[in-house]
Amino acid sequence: MASKTPVGFIGLGNMGNPMAKNLMKHGYPLIIYDVFPDACKEFQDAGEQVVSSPADVAEKADRIITMLPTSINAIEAYSGANGILKKVKKGSLLIDSSTIDPAVSKELAKEVEKMGAVFMDAPVSGGVGAARSGNLTFMVGGVEDEFAAAQELLGCMGSNVVYCGAVGTGQAAKICNNMLLAISMIGTAETMNLGIRLGLDPKLLAKILNMSSGRCWSSDTYNPVPGVMDGVPSANNYQGGFGATLMAKDLGLAQDSATSTKSPILLGSQAHQIYRMMCAKGYSKKDFSSVFQFLREEESF
Amino acid sequence: MASKTPVGFIGLGNMGNPMAKNLMKHGYPLIIYDVFPDACKEFQDAGEQVVSSPADVAEKADRIITMLPTSINAIEAYSGANGILKKVKKGSLLIDSSTIDPAVSKELAKEVEKMGAVFMDAPVSGGVGAARSGNLTFMVGGVEDEFAAAQELLGCMGSNVVYCGAVGTGQAAKICNNMLLAISMIGTAETMNLGIRLGLDPKLLAKILNMSSGRCWSSDTYNPVPGVMDGVPSANNYQGGFGATLMAKDLGLAQDSATSTKSPILLGSQAHQIYRMMCAKGYSKKDFSSVFQFLREEESF
Amino acid sequence: MASKTPVGFIGLGNMGNPMAKNLMKHGYPLIIYDVFPDACKEFQDAGEQVVSSPADVAEKADRIITMLPTSINAIEAYSGANGILKKVKKGSLLIDSSTIDPAVSKELAKEVEKMGAVFMDAPVSGGVGAARSGNLTFMVGGVEDEFAAAQELLGCMGSNVVYCGAVGTGQAAKICNNMLLAISMIGTAETMNLGIRLGLDPKLLAKILNMSSGRCWSSDTYNPVPGVMDGVPSANNYQGGFGATLMAKDLGLAQDSATSTKSPILLGSQAHQIYRMMCAKGYSKKDFSSVFQFLREEESF
Amino acid sequence: MASKTPVGFIGLGNMGNPMAKNLMKHGYPLIIYDVFPDACKEFQDAGEQVVSSPADVAEKADRIITMLPTSINAIEAYSGANGILKKVKKGSLLIDSSTIDPAVSKELAKEVEKMGAVFMDAPVSGGVGAARSGNLTFMVGGVEDEFAAAQELLGCMGSNVVYCGAVGTGQAAKICNNMLLAISMIGTAETMNLGIRLGLDPKLLAKILNMSSGRCWSSDTYNPVPGVMDGVPSANNYQGGFGATLMAKDLGLAQDSATSTKSPILLGSQAHQIYRMMCAKGYSKKDFSSVFQFLREEESF
Repeated sequence: MASKTPVGFIGLGNMGNPMAKNLMKHGYPLIIYDVFPDACKEFQDAGEQVVSSPADVAEKADRIITMLPTSINAIEAYSGANGILKKVKKGSLLIDSSTIDPAVSKELAKEVEKMGAVFMDAPVSGGVGAARSGNLTFMVGGVEDEFAAAQELLGCMGSNVVYCGAVGTGQAAKICNNMLLAISMIGTAETMNLGIRLGLDPKLLAKILNMSSGRCWSSDTYNPVPGVMDGVPSANNYQGGFGATLMAKDLGLAQDSATSTKSPILLGSQAHQIYRMMCAKGYSKKDFSSVFQFLREEESF
Repeated sequence: MASKTPVGFIGLGNMGNPMAKNLMKHGYPLIIYDVFPDACKEFQDAGEQVVSSPADVAEKADRIITMLPTSINAIEAYSGANGILKKVKKGSLLIDSSTIDPAVSKELAKEVEKMGAVFMDAPVSGGVGAARSGNLTFMVGGVEDEFAAAQELLGCMGSNVVYCGAVGTGQAAKICNNMLLAISMIGTAETMNLGIRLGLDPKLLAKILNMSSGRCWSSDTYNPVPGVMDGVPSANNYQGGFGATLMAKDLGLAQDSATSTKSPILLGSQAHQIYRMMCAKGYSKKDFSSVFQFLREEESF
Repeated sequence: MASKTPVGFIGLGNMGNPMAKNLMKHGYPLIIYDVFPDACKEFQDAGEQVVSSPADVAEKADRIITMLPTSINAIEAYSGANGILKKVKKGSLLIDSSTIDPAVSKELAKEVEKMGAVFMDAPVSGGVGAARSGNLTFMVGGVEDEFAAAQELLGCMGSNVVYCGAVGTGQAAKICNNMLLAISMIGTAETMNLGIRLGLDPKLLAKILNMSSGRCWSSDTYNPVPGVMDGVPSANNYQGGFGATLMAKDLGLAQDSATSTKSPILLGSQAHQIYRMMCAKGYSKKDFSSVFQFLREEESF
Repeated sequence: MASKTPVGFIGLGNMGNPMAKNLMKHGYPLIIYDVFPDACKEFQDAGEQVVSSPADVAEKADRIITMLPTSINAIEAYSGANGILKKVKKGSLLIDSSTIDPAVSKELAKEVEKMGAVFMDAPVSGGVGAARSGNLTFMVGGVEDEFAAAQELLGCMGSNVVYCGAVGTGQAAKICNNMLLAISMIGTAETMNLGIRLGLDPKLLAKILNMSSGRCWSSDTYNPVPGVMDGVPSANNYQGGFGATLMAKDLGLAQDSATSTKSPILLGSQAHQIYRMMCAKGYSKKDFSSVFQFLREEESF
C-alpha cells in the first residue's frame, strides 16, 4: 500500500482530538497545530509532526481540516497574521468543521478562492462519543465537484457525509437542525411537565406522544424526564451529552442568521433566550435536556 | 346473534356523525340527540330513535357517548335544564369524547358519581377521515375497572383505545400531545423557512432533519413545506387536515390547564398566540401546517 | 351627627384589614366575617360585630364589601352553602374588591340581580401602604346609577374611585393595567441589563430613557436596577412592594380573559410565563421588579 | 463674524438632508458626498462643494458627519477603497450619526484612532420632523474630552446632545431606548385590544393606564388606538411617524448586541419577531404603532 500524503489538522480539542486520531487510524500522516501546545503533545508522542502556526500547516499539507470553537477562532486560523492564507498552496482543499456563522464561512471561502484553493464548510453533528467511534455526521457545503475529495477524508471520521449545496449550506443545515432540536426539546419538557401536573404518569405520557403526532426525537430517543428512558442524560442527572452552553451558542448563530436574512423565528428566538437564562442559572454544563429540570417548579437545585 | 342494547349518542356533528355510524355498523341501536334537528335526520331515516333532549337519551339508554365542540356545550348536555343528569339511571356509563378542559371533566365526573353512574373522558385524535374509517385514537380517563366496558364501544370507532388514568387524564393526554404538536409544527416551519433563505433545498433539508435530532412528526410525516411530501395538506394548498382554529382551541385548553396548575409553558403559550393571530389573518380554515405560509415573508396571500 | 348604618365586611386579610379600619374611622359600624376567626379578633376588641358566615353578614347589613384572594373564595362567599345570597336583602349593595376573573364577576352579578340586589366589582390598585393611608385606587364596574352609592364607601378607603362601565370592567381595567405594567417592567429590566453590558452607566441610561420614548412608570418611578433610585424595592433588596406571586396571579387572569375573548397577547403571555418561572426559582415573595435580578447573568442568588 | 471652517457631510438622505441644511443655517460651509449624485444637487445649487468620494471629503474637511442607513454603508464610507480613512487628516473629528451595531462603531473607532483622528458615534432619536426643526436628540459615545467639539456641531441640528460614555455607548443608548419603546408599544397595543374586548371604552382605558403604573410613552403620548389621541399616526391611518421597517432594523441591532453580550432579552427578541412578521404582512411603511391594527382580530386590512 502506497503511503498517503499528509493531512493538516488545526484544533485538537475535545472533538478535534478523536477526529484526528481516526485519520491516523486510516493511515494519514498528520501535520498538527493547536494554540495550546499541550493539545499537540499526544500526537507528537505518536510520531506526528507538530508545527507552530496555521501558516506552517498550510506549507506542509495541501489538505487541511480545522475544528475550532467560534467564528473568531476560525477567522484567526485562516486570515490571521500567521493564518493558513499566508502560505496556502494552489489547489489545496481546506475543510472547516467548526460550527460558525454561515456568513463567515462564505467570507472565508471567498478569500480562499482568491488564493486558488478550495474551501468547504463541514460542521458535524454527534458529540465526543460519535467522534471517537467515527460515527459523526458531516454536513458539507462547497463546490460539488470537490465533494468526493472531501468525502475521502471525512468518511474516516464519520459514518454519514451529506452534501448540502453551496458554501455555507453545511453550517445552515447544522444550525437549522439544532434550532428545531432545541424547540422540540423545550416543547417536550413543557409538555411532560404539564402532563405530570395534570396527573399523567410520565412513562405513559411519553408512550402516548410517541405513537401520536407529538412524537419527536426529544420525546422518543432522548426523553428529558428522569425515569422515562435508560441510557440518556436525564437518567444520569443530566451529565454528559450536549451542554446547554453549546446549545445556546448554536441558537445564537441561528438567531444571527435569521436576523440577517429577515426570517421570523418566534419559537427559535425564544428557545435561544431560554438556554441563555439556563446558562446564567447553573445549567451551563448540564445536558440541554435539563430544561425539564429548569422548568419544573421546585425551589431546590 | 342476540340483539345489542341501545347506546345513546349526543352530538352528531362532523365527528359525531361518522362515529355514530360506526356504532350502527357494529349492530348497536342508537338513541340520538343533537341541538340541530337536521343533524339527526339521516339517523332517523336509517331507523334509529331520535329524542328531544339529553335527558330523554339518558332515560332510554344506559350507555351514552357525547361528542360536543366546547366545555360549555358539554356542561349544558350534562347539567342543563334537560341534561343527562336529570334522568340518568344508576350504573349508567357516560363517555364524553369532546375535547374540553380536564377540570370540567372532573367536575362532570363528580356530579355523575353523585347519581350513582360512571363518567369517563375519552377525547379522540385523528380527524374526520379516521372517524369514518374507524381508526380514531381514544385517550381514556376514568375508573380503571370500567375501562373494559368503555373499550367495547370505543373499539367500534377507533383502532387505538388507551387507558390514561383517573378522570381528566384522557383530556390531559390529548391537549399535551396537541401542544407539543403545535410547537413542533411551528418549529419545523420556522426551521424550513430559515434553511431555505440560507440557500438549502427544502427536500434536502427535510431529509437531513429526518435523519438527525431535529426529526419530528411534523418534519417526517406532515411536512409543512409545499413540494416536500405528497398526500399532505401542504401539497394541496393546506386544504383538509386539522384547521388552525381547532389547534387554537386546543392550545387555549392547554393554556388554561397550565395557568391553573402553575406550569410554565413558554413555547406552548407562544404557539397559542401564533395560532390566535393566524385565525385573525385568514388562516382559520386552513390546515395548521399553513403556519409555514404565514411565516414566509411574502405579501400576497 | 346621625349614626351611620352598618357596613358588612368579608375578608380581613392584609388588604381587607386596613380597608375596614378606614371605614371605621369614617364612622361606619361594621359587621365582620372572615374564614379565619383570628382575623376578626382585632375588630371584635374594637367593638365591631363579628358573625359566623357571609349569610349572617347579609342578614345584618345591606351594604357589603368583599375582599378575597381568588375567584374561588369569592364564589364561595357569594354562592356557597352559607353565602351572601342565602340571606341577602332586596336593594342591598354588594361591592367586590377582590381581583378575580371578570367572567366570574359577571356571573356573580347575574345571581345577585336575581335576588333584587346590586353587585359592583371594584378591584383596587395600590398595595398595603395605600390601603392603610386610604389612598387606594378603585376601578368600579356596575350599573352607573349605583356608582354614587358605591363611591360614598369606597371614597373612605381610596383617593381615586374611577367608574369603568358595566359589571366586569373594573376587573378588566385592573388586569389590563397590570399586564402592561408587567410587560413594561420586564422590558425595562431587559433594557437596563443590556445597556449595562454594552457599557452604559445605569443611572445615565435611566435618565436617557426617561427623557425619550422608552419612558415608562417602571423606568421613571420604580426603576428595577439597584442604585438608580431611592425609596423603591430595588433599593432595598426587592423587599416590600408587589410580590412576584401576586403579579403571576394577575397575569393568569389576563391570560384567561385573553383566551376566552380570543385576544392575541404575545408579550402578555410571555410575561406571565416569566413570572411563573420566577415563582419557581425563589422570587415569589420578592417585589416584581426583581425580574432585573432574575435576568442578570449571575450564578449566585 | 469670522467665516467658519467647512464641515464634511456624507449621506444626504431623508435625515441627512435636513440635518445638513441646519448646519448651513448656522453658517458652516459644507463638503458634500452621497452615493446618489441626485441627493447632492440641491446643495450644489445652494453653493456647497460636492466631491466624488468620502476620501475627498476627508481631504477637504477635518470635521465630518456621516448619516448612513446600515453598518455596511458605514464600513464602506470609512474603510472602503475610497473611504474616509484613505485621506483623513490627523486630528480630524469624525462623527457617525448612523444607527449601527455598537460593535461596528468600536471597530471603526479603532481604525480611525490608528490614523491619529477621533471617532464618535452619535445616533439620533426623533424623525424627519425633528431633523428639519433642529430638535433631534443626539446620543454621543467617544472620548469625553472631544465632546465639546462634537457638541458645537450637533447642537446646530439637535436640541438635546447627551454624552453617554465610551465609543459605542451612543449606539447602545439608542438601541436600548428603541427596544424598550417597541416592547412598550406592543404591550400597549395588546392591552388596549384586550381591554376593548372586555368591554372597556378605549379613551377611558387609556386615561386609567396613564394615571396608573401601566403608564408609558406609548400609552400617554403616542397611543396606538385610533380615536384616543389627536395628532399621532394612529389618528391618521398610521401614516408618517416611525416605520415598522425601521423599528425591525433597530430591534435586529438590539438582538445582535444581546446575542454577542449573552444578555437575555425575552420580550425584546419577541418584539423583534413581531415587527419582522409585520414587515412581511404589508405594514413595512406604516408607523410602528400600527401593531395595534396588526393584533386586532379583523380580516380586512
